[in-house]
Amino acid sequence: MVSPHEYARSQQPAFLEQLKELIRIPSVSTNPENAGDVRRAAEWLAADMRRIGMDVEIVDTPGHPIVYGEWLGAGPDKPTVLIYGHYDVQPAERETGWDTDPFEPVIKDGKLYARGSSDDKGQMFAQLKAVESLLLSDAKSPVNIKFLAEGEEEVSSLHLGEFVTANRERLKADVCVISDSGILAKDQPSIVYSLRGLTYMELHVQGPDKDLHSGGFGGGVHNPAQALCELIAALHNPDGSIAVPGFYDDVLPLSAQEREEIKKTDWTEEEWLRITGVPQVWGEAGYSLRERIGARPTLEVNGLLSGFTGEGAKTVLPAKAMAKISCRLVANQSPQRIYELVRDYIAQITPPTVRSEVRLLHTGEPALVDLNSPAIQLAITAYEKGWGKTPVFVREGGSIPIVADFQRELGLPVILMGFGLDTDGAHGPNEHFDIEMYYRGIDTAIYFLQEAAKL
Amino acid sequence: MVSPHEYARSQQPAFLEQLKELIRIPSVSTNPENAGDVRRAAEWLAADMRRIGMDVEIVDTPGHPIVYGEWLGAGPDKPTVLIYGHYDVQPAERETGWDTDPFEPVIKDGKLYARGSSDDKGQMFAQLKAVESLLLSDAKSPVNIKFLAEGEEEVSSLHLGEFVTANRERLKADVCVISDSGILAKDQPSIVYSLRGLTYMELHVQGPDKDLHSGGFGGGVHNPAQALCELIAALHNPDGSIAVPGFYDDVLPLSAQEREEIKKTDWTEEEWLRITGVPQVWGEAGYSLRERIGARPTLEVNGLLSGFTGEGAKTVLPAKAMAKISCRLVANQSPQRIYELVRDYIAQITPPTVRSEVRLLHTGEPALVDLNSPAIQLAITAYEKGWGKTPVFVREGGSIPIVADFQRELGLPVILMGFGLDTDGAHGPNEHFDIEMYYRGIDTAIYFLQEAAKL
Repeated sequence: MVSPHEYARSQQPAFLEQLKELIRIPSVSTNPENAGDVRRAAEWLAADMRRIGMDVEIVDTPGHPIVYGEWLGAGPDKPTVLIYGHYDVQPAERETGWDTDPFEPVIKDGKLYARGSSDDKGQMFAQLKAVESLLLSDAKSPVNIKFLAEGEEEVSSLHLGEFVTANRERLKADVCVISDSGILAKDQPSIVYSLRGLTYMELHVQGPDKDLHSGGFGGGVHNPAQALCELIAALHNPDGSIAVPGFYDDVLPLSAQEREEIKKTDWTEEEWLRITGVPQVWGEAGYSLRERIGARPTLEVNGLLSGFTGEGAKTVLPAKAMAKISCRLVANQSPQRIYELVRDYIAQITPPTVRSEVRLLHTGEPALVDLNSPAIQLAITAYEKGWGKTPVFVREGGSIPIVADFQRELGLPVILMGFGLDTDGAHGPNEHFDIEMYYRGIDTAIYFLQEAAKL
Repeated sequence: MVSPHEYARSQQPAFLEQLKELIRIPSVSTNPENAGDVRRAAEWLAADMRRIGMDVEIVDTPGHPIVYGEWLGAGPDKPTVLIYGHYDVQPAERETGWDTDPFEPVIKDGKLYARGSSDDKGQMFAQLKAVESLLLSDAKSPVNIKFLAEGEEEVSSLHLGEFVTANRERLKADVCVISDSGILAKDQPSIVYSLRGLTYMELHVQGPDKDLHSGGFGGGVHNPAQALCELIAALHNPDGSIAVPGFYDDVLPLSAQEREEIKKTDWTEEEWLRITGVPQVWGEAGYSLRERIGARPTLEVNGLLSGFTGEGAKTVLPAKAMAKISCRLVANQSPQRIYELVRDYIAQITPPTVRSEVRLLHTGEPALVDLNSPAIQLAITAYEKGWGKTPVFVREGGSIPIVADFQRELGLPVILMGFGLDTDGAHGPNEHFDIEMYYRGIDTAIYFLQEAAKL
């Protein structure tokens, strides 16, 4: 008799090689030129699911495909676990600070360096390898398994919501588990119970109808790059809060008890400076760091572009300037409403000397997880067995827009069972995943599926 | 007997083809990858000078070469005219709004479209073709000619100053003429008597030591793109003046008489909106448009770059942000002093939550031309003959840094004999040169060389 955990341990080298194979496919969902790679990753994943005995369908969407696999061998009287993950990744240009090729995984100090190693190929794959360990060991799985992997999470799950709504029956389950978040520290597992939503916009400022000579026209034309900066500078107040009228209207106040709870997992200023490399902490006055990240909405500039940005000097007065701006939102805020507030405020403060436009790129709903669901207790037990330590509960600053859909459309408790670390560098250069976390994640996910039989 | 003007008219088609050949060489001085092209343009120009009988030397510098040609056949008792121009051009990326390949000249509605067609290959070449018309017609030239063409004007004449200082004797002349500016209108020639100087800088802001996930860190880190915008927004006052302390200290006030004179050549608001395409005029309160462009210093953002600027969305919190910033300066201002003032002000207003640095890229001195020199009268006569109309005097917003060097080092009167138009699109997309202006320019330059015999 080979147990699932014995199987998983014996297969560790294979599990690592397989993950590296998946990572080598540059499935960057936001780049149109990578569309073929995203499909290739979907097909690779589908083949791996079929190999372990799942029924698999690659579902086409107007964007990137959804991979859906199921194994219902436990029988209709047994609980069903819906596992969600994504096989698409953020862009990764070597010149943005990567020490090695982002799509050629390299192992250094026990960590696997590559785009997607943590977010989310590595974490999703830990779940799939747990499923494999149950299905291919002698034990088999005590629960039915539905595995949903999408290729558009990094572009705000553009078409997954429709799929979920249209497939309510098919996706019916007793609990949903997602490994696409971080734990507090290598020796301190944690369960995320709050996710921020997202409103992603582009701000365009147009001045003259074409680029002009800065000598011949400078001084008589409102420079659109300057005007863009003036608009962006007006989006925050000196105390770090957001100046857009109505921005905080729907934010639920934190209770004293919740603030006490959050305090337990806060960073010290020293930790924060070490993790981020900034010279001094910044943020909304009156809130701790963990509150700023997890419990308060933000407005960030993700990109700026105007005029000449190459080496050397070009004395151009640019015709236009552009900023990518995104807001992270907390429970009870509406992404669409926030877009409208920002759009209207920008329109109101744009001077008559330039033209401006705020375009909505995409949105994602914020989510809060019910800490009283029985499924949460199973997750606690799984971490205790897999990690040897009781997890704590934290609010996460990031967004997994589909969580709100699962809650609303499927009426499911959602467990955010992260295996990553804040320091993994998700979305930045030199993203990595601790290989020990990968293996512990597989163990913990096996325990969770076994525990889920009690539901 | 073929007169110089007859020669010039008979050669018009050839003069146009030759200019197109020179334009096809993409001699973009600021791009290191075009260094070979810049040299090729120098060699092409040197060959053309040799063909018409000049003694030519290609002078190497640590940057791009200087082409120096002379014809001293008029004899030591005759006046000498020093002609200056530049064969390097601004960058021109097709995707910045060009309708056609910037380095493949196209003729539309009597205009030659290509980078450098006006600034300065076209205007410089009009001077050289005037020299050719004198040397190769039966008349010969009544004055000695020294022709200095540099390949670094668009990067602030990095090495020309040294060459001028080291070659004071060799460059000795009675007058210097430069065709690298505009005239008021096609039917109204003008002579520029004031040029702005330049201080070109890069402002760098660094936040975290690497790009971060905007969800995991946004709200606890001062976003460097936002901080950059806040710094740039603080560089101007609400009345359009520059907020850098001391910026205007050395600016000479305009006399009432000068303001009256400037008023004669001012743009109407309607003209300005039509030329630039902006929705409303902007600028320093208390000054007319022509004063803002020609008589007041400015501070312009020439470029902005931070974070993700591709298609779609990337929720990155950028590690750094950069702006290209340049100041146009007026007579009596010191470019180095202005750099120091901007640098110190930025250092003073940079919050402790980010790090900033202002780097000086290059400088150029402002210049005022003495309107009482006898050479100015010759230029007036040349325009009257070439254009059939008396030129007016104007202040130009652009910079020709070497003018101050010629004045100081060689003690020469400098005549800015422009043939371009404000609407030529110098430094922007779809730069063009009216072919009629090219031919009239050649005629006028011939008249000037003939008039110069009277010096």
